[in-house]
Amino acid sequence: MADGGHDGRMDVRNLEELLGRFSDQWSPKRIATVNDYEVKLAKVQGEFVWHDHPDTDELFLVISGKLTIQLRDGDVVLGPGELFVVPKGVEHCPRADDETAILLLEPAGTVNTGTAGGDRTAVVETLD
Amino acid sequence: MADGGHDGRMDVRNLEELLGRFSDQWSPKRIATVNDYEVKLAKVQGEFVWHDHPDTDELFLVISGKLTIQLRDGDVVLGPGELFVVPKGVEHCPRADDETAILLLEPAGTVNTGTAGGDRTAVVETLD
Repeated sequence: MADGGHDGRMDVRNLEELLGRFSDQWSPKRIATVNDYEVKLAKVQGEFVWHDHPDTDELFLVISGKLTIQLRDGDVVLGPGELFVVPKGVEHCPRADDETAILLLEPAGTVNTGTAGGDRTAVVETLD
Repeated sequence: MADGGHDGRMDVRNLEELLGRFSDQWSPKRIATVNDYEVKLAKVQGEFVWHDHPDTDELFLVISGKLTIQLRDGDVVLGPGELFVVPKGVEHCPRADDETAILLLEPAGTVNTGTAGGDRTAVVETLD
């Protein structure tokens, strides 16, 4: 952190430390904002729901574990240090056999379940 | 990668593998696009130039090494797995004693030297 004192937006965000601060799965936490885009961290395990985001691409970066992004024409498998962008409008369904930590990037206000909705829809909290 | 065959945008991007494909410093390489934002990788060492981006925030995530982002009121020091967002309009000057690999996120078309210009201004290549 800079010496001069800053508001929360000026803090260094340590991904490992932030991941240690929550345990709920499929519930992305906002950790940074870049203009009107949000960087989120999530822990995931099991299978999510098929959905798409008709108006935006969505970036997934795996921090630890293994994430399979099921697409209608095949699976994308990501390990640590691998990222993938699901294009807007492309149906996808993430799953992870073991708990997996991921970083997400998408415009503010993007809903995790896209147009599918349902009880997996999460309210995004901010990790200060 | 999905089985069905995709264009370049649908590829898995492995950060370590991509970093192994270039050696020039202070020359960000585009590795993914999220709507009108770009994800870039760069290797940096030494000191850059003081500059700002009056119209956009800029995200730095350190992959390896140590990055010091000098601000007018103090330094921000980032190690691996740490990220920081320089707010729009805030003057900054990155430096790294040893070679450091970083991931950048900013809107497409953002110039690395911001309003400072000069001979450190890089043309952004794409790593396919």
